[in-house]
Amino acid sequence: MELRTSGEEPDRFGPSIGTLGEDPLVAGVIDRYPSAPWLTVGPGDDAAVLDLTGGWAGPLIACTDTVVEGQDFLRKWSTARDIGIKVAAQNFADVAAMGGRPHTLLVSLTTPADVPASWAHELADGLAAECTRAGAVVAGGDVSAGSEIVVTGTALGTLVTPQAVLRSGASPGDVIALAGGVGRSGAGWALLRSGFSSTDPVLAALVGEHRAPVPPYTAGVEAALAGASAMIDTSDGLVRDATRIAVASKVVLDLAPSALSPSLDLLHAAEFLKVGRAGAQDWVLTGGEDHALLACFPPSAVLPASFQVIGEVRAGDPGVWFGGEPFRGEGGWTHWT
Amino acid sequence: MELRTSGEEPDRFGPSIGTLGEDPLVAGVIDRYPSAPWLTVGPGDDAAVLDLTGGWAGPLIACTDTVVEGQDFLRKWSTARDIGIKVAAQNFADVAAMGGRPHTLLVSLTTPADVPASWAHELADGLAAECTRAGAVVAGGDVSAGSEIVVTGTALGTLVTPQAVLRSGASPGDVIALAGGVGRSGAGWALLRSGFSSTDPVLAALVGEHRAPVPPYTAGVEAALAGASAMIDTSDGLVRDATRIAVASKVVLDLAPSALSPSLDLLHAAEFLKVGRAGAQDWVLTGGEDHALLACFPPSAVLPASFQVIGEVRAGDPGVWFGGEPFRGEGGWTHWT
Repeated sequence: MELRTSGEEPDRFGPSIGTLGEDPLVAGVIDRYPSAPWLTVGPGDDAAVLDLTGGWAGPLIACTDTVVEGQDFLRKWSTARDIGIKVAAQNFADVAAMGGRPHTLLVSLTTPADVPASWAHELADGLAAECTRAGAVVAGGDVSAGSEIVVTGTALGTLVTPQAVLRSGASPGDVIALAGGVGRSGAGWALLRSGFSSTDPVLAALVGEHRAPVPPYTAGVEAALAGASAMIDTSDGLVRDATRIAVASKVVLDLAPSALSPSLDLLHAAEFLKVGRAGAQDWVLTGGEDHALLACFPPSAVLPASFQVIGEVRAGDPGVWFGGEPFRGEGGWTHWT
Repeated sequence: MELRTSGEEPDRFGPSIGTLGEDPLVAGVIDRYPSAPWLTVGPGDDAAVLDLTGGWAGPLIACTDTVVEGQDFLRKWSTARDIGIKVAAQNFADVAAMGGRPHTLLVSLTTPADVPASWAHELADGLAAECTRAGAVVAGGDVSAGSEIVVTGTALGTLVTPQAVLRSGASPGDVIALAGGVGRSGAGWALLRSGFSSTDPVLAALVGEHRAPVPPYTAGVEAALAGASAMIDTSDGLVRDATRIAVASKVVLDLAPSALSPSLDLLHAAEFLKVGRAGAQDWVLTGGEDHALLACFPPSAVLPASFQVIGEVRAGDPGVWFGGEPFRGEGGWTHWT
């Protein structure tokens, strides 16, 4: 699933990062970030200072996630703004998947000298936009020279409950539920890979969700408050991430086909790409990068409205079942394959 | 100052990262990290959970810093353990330079598939070793595929004083002081670049400090408690980093040549490399990556024993003076040049 693209043409003009130089580049980037009361010292000193009292008191959540050009994005398919949204979104989704509210992002950019400075500025715009959507700030960052673009985000958030929702807490009898769509990013990726060129708004929306995911952050907090027993975000595909809960919790996640039928827009994309209903079902089960939230709840829990039931936890050899038998399809995204 | 080294031979044997695969790789890495009471949930779930109460209550410090193969290190000159120490050290030094105590590190590794898995394991050993030296833990991380090795660290720490020590607080009349050595990493780098091969322990020690810096973390807290008015770590060279304080504080940092004479071991290395006393002086003033702490203190402050006075802050056009006149040499490390 590698998409090597060295030597890609920049899609914008203006001075390159190497021509502009480090200090002006950083100054132009920092200008684009929102502020917030808890960011006591923002980007520009050795480190940021955060005042995590009041509403941000509580256990701190921290995670990091990286995107690499040619592996996770192509400059010809995604704008810098899309990449900024994606880096922020996939990190904040991990905070949400613990039951936390994201509040802070740090970003490290490694880039060749010949990338346009405007690309880095648009990346900052995307980071700022997704931070604003999530209610968070960019607290700091770093720039380095390298032969390909690598963007690493590190997200911080605060739990609203005393305990985080781990992958390991599911028990037989729990219901399995999902907040957010799955398969949409996978369909968008398939459309892009096919050389998609259409003004069809349904297809364009799927491509848009591949370029810039829309995780349901607040559903993570809602799940924690409703007593979720286990949770994960669907980074690598529903089945692959469900398997992680199954293995960590030593249970079977039995997914109901009736609850995971491809939606009409996925079926429309499948028809456009001539991959049939099976292709659309495959996107739902194994398409990654939607960053939906997959959670398990005790049978007594009142599910938040953001979640839909998609199956039931059973005892048995840890794994994922679909339609009454162990899932045997491809497992979703993995690195170095 | 680029040191491109694509296609370098791995210096260890055993399965490659691509052969081993993501999940076994991560499991082998996580095993090497130390634990600590404040790390409630460590690596392995969507995110880490930190209990920053008790001694870790207080304003949170956060920063991120990246090293790139060929730019910041060469596998033929540094072991993976050295790189791990370096990534942790340069991030923790930024926390210390605000007056904070580092407690947590997150790490993202981007790597080609053909790098030996043992390299990633030794990287983790180096991260763990420097975390232990600093009193911190590795809370989480990420692995990605890419065409060159990129390691991003994100450090968290806690202030022991109500306010962080910024770059912008120096005033005319303040004394300028330094904790830790400067020029030692620069000398080590010059030795490596010259094809250094010697059992001379003085030279070997300088090379060792280039490979794995030894920042004086606790001096940062001591400076904050002693009322330091400004502080920075010397990442990019003494003059370049002093200039950052000068510009942020709108003052002159007047450095005293008598306090910045090259030490005997630097003079020994300069003799070995036939660069003379001027070469050794240049390492002191512009050699980067020592991560010493450069601080300014009000005249009334009692300097911590870890600091040596090296000059005085004066009013004037912001900049660095050395020996009674503006410093006019090369400015130290910068990216994309």
